[in-house]
Amino acid sequence: MRLRLMPREERFFDLFVKDAENVTAAAEMLKRMLAHYDERAVLAERLRDAEHEGDQITHDIGHRLEATFVTPFDREDIHALINGLDDVLDLVEEVGDTFGLYGITEPTPAAQQQAGIVVQQCHQLTQALNQLQGFKDLDKYWIEIHRLENEGDVIVRRAIADLFRNGQEPMEVIKWKDLYGLLEETIDACEDVANVIERIVVKHA
Amino acid sequence: MRLRLMPREERFFDLFVKDAENVTAAAEMLKRMLAHYDERAVLAERLRDAEHEGDQITHDIGHRLEATFVTPFDREDIHALINGLDDVLDLVEEVGDTFGLYGITEPTPAAQQQAGIVVQQCHQLTQALNQLQGFKDLDKYWIEIHRLENEGDVIVRRAIADLFRNGQEPMEVIKWKDLYGLLEETIDACEDVANVIERIVVKHA
Amino acid sequence: MRLRLMPREERFFDLFVKDAENVTAAAEMLKRMLAHYDERAVLAERLRDAEHEGDQITHDIGHRLEATFVTPFDREDIHALINGLDDVLDLVEEVGDTFGLYGITEPTPAAQQQAGIVVQQCHQLTQALNQLQGFKDLDKYWIEIHRLENEGDVIVRRAIADLFRNGQEPMEVIKWKDLYGLLEETIDACEDVANVIERIVVKHA
Repeated sequence: MRLRLMPREERFFDLFVKDAENVTAAAEMLKRMLAHYDERAVLAERLRDAEHEGDQITHDIGHRLEATFVTPFDREDIHALINGLDDVLDLVEEVGDTFGLYGITEPTPAAQQQAGIVVQQCHQLTQALNQLQGFKDLDKYWIEIHRLENEGDVIVRRAIADLFRNGQEPMEVIKWKDLYGLLEETIDACEDVANVIERIVVKHA
Repeated sequence: MRLRLMPREERFFDLFVKDAENVTAAAEMLKRMLAHYDERAVLAERLRDAEHEGDQITHDIGHRLEATFVTPFDREDIHALINGLDDVLDLVEEVGDTFGLYGITEPTPAAQQQAGIVVQQCHQLTQALNQLQGFKDLDKYWIEIHRLENEGDVIVRRAIADLFRNGQEPMEVIKWKDLYGLLEETIDACEDVANVIERIVVKHA
Repeated sequence: MRLRLMPREERFFDLFVKDAENVTAAAEMLKRMLAHYDERAVLAERLRDAEHEGDQITHDIGHRLEATFVTPFDREDIHALINGLDDVLDLVEEVGDTFGLYGITEPTPAAQQQAGIVVQQCHQLTQALNQLQGFKDLDKYWIEIHRLENEGDVIVRRAIADLFRNGQEPMEVIKWKDLYGLLEETIDACEDVANVIERIVVKHA
């Protein structure tokens, strides 16, 4: 039997990355669902699996947290980090689910673009968490995540204005206002995670 | 004059139960309102009374908290508990009120079922608080509360999918999407209270 | 070079007042926009400027907070205060923006009244912050702020009931339900700031 030589703390960092990778995989599924809408049933199923996987990782980190005296940074920040990633995952799953629930027959380009932004933000978050252990040189990630949020903002504002301008059917307005809103919430939730990481780094600077 | 022999701490537990009983009574009124919709005016009035009663109990607990050095568990958990019960009560009252505001002429079976779930969850919460003082054997209550939340989830998802499937009038969709959403929030708020109680018990285990 | 004789703490109080004055100016712009709707493009622009000004003040306070050992009251209360004012400002800007986004051609009297209530609440908040340093005799401000919130509640309930009573077009209901809701959130956000100030004063009483 080999002794574990890696100190306990490092395993926390590995779990944060694993968590972010799972969220990123879910975001990729959502993006693919909206691009290849005929595969939506299979992808919605896989999204639900990713959500369960995320719950498992969250519980793992939680249990490890209870069993550990020394944590790499404040417990409340670890909680904020894993809860933030969990919020992103729940929203990604909810978006996919709502497309089915509302009987959407064809995703709009605006929704596809929003899903693409979520994927890009998740990649940035994963890279930032991969380098978190050094507690430095992470500025570039959240600058990019905020830039992506602004880009999403322009897309959703134009899409909502179009809904109210083009003599659309009320039922379409009801559906798409919700869907654009949910996707925007997801983008904001990614930004919230970036803010948590920024706070952690500032404390350790 | 008799001396008070009951220690101060026990009175907190009594107040938590009193608070939960008041919330449960309000949930029963809402359930009855949706089942006997011709009595709605009287029941909406009584719901408002229950909300004021709840505010009174919350203030009582708050004042007692300020005047007490030793509390049965962390002050912040007591706050979370009474605020959580207050959220349930506010939502129950808001649901009843919104039926009137939107001029609903007949409650749907799905809304009646959701109200029934809130009542069952409130009974579980009351029983859990009745046994809180021992800080053990409460698992059965939150297992049941989470099971009820899942049951409510199935009901609301089916109801929302029906709204978008059946060529409904947009005005009906606007109204019922809000009402189902508010009832779902109420069910989630009960689950939040269960989570607070679980956290308290875990700390004392 | 003159020495700064004013103690550091006082400058915090000045910044809180400056922050509240900026929020009040924004609320006045929104009220004017809804009363003189032909000036809406210019006023929406000025609202965005006020939002940036508010972000600047918030950052100033934040930096001063990091550089200061002794603060006039708990750091977390200072954060709650400036975040609360920031929430009001963001909502005021969002309301103005949404009127444009939804292509509203004429504001309703109810929306104009709600905007008037926000202005009155902001004046009360500014006056309260002007006298905060004494930590007393502030009761009259939050009594008035809560009274205004109740007044707003009556207005929005009547306006929403009218939406569902008068055989309105679904598109109008969709738009106005959102706008009344956003204005109500703004009024509630002012009340939240009043609650933070009340909490601060109670701690120092």
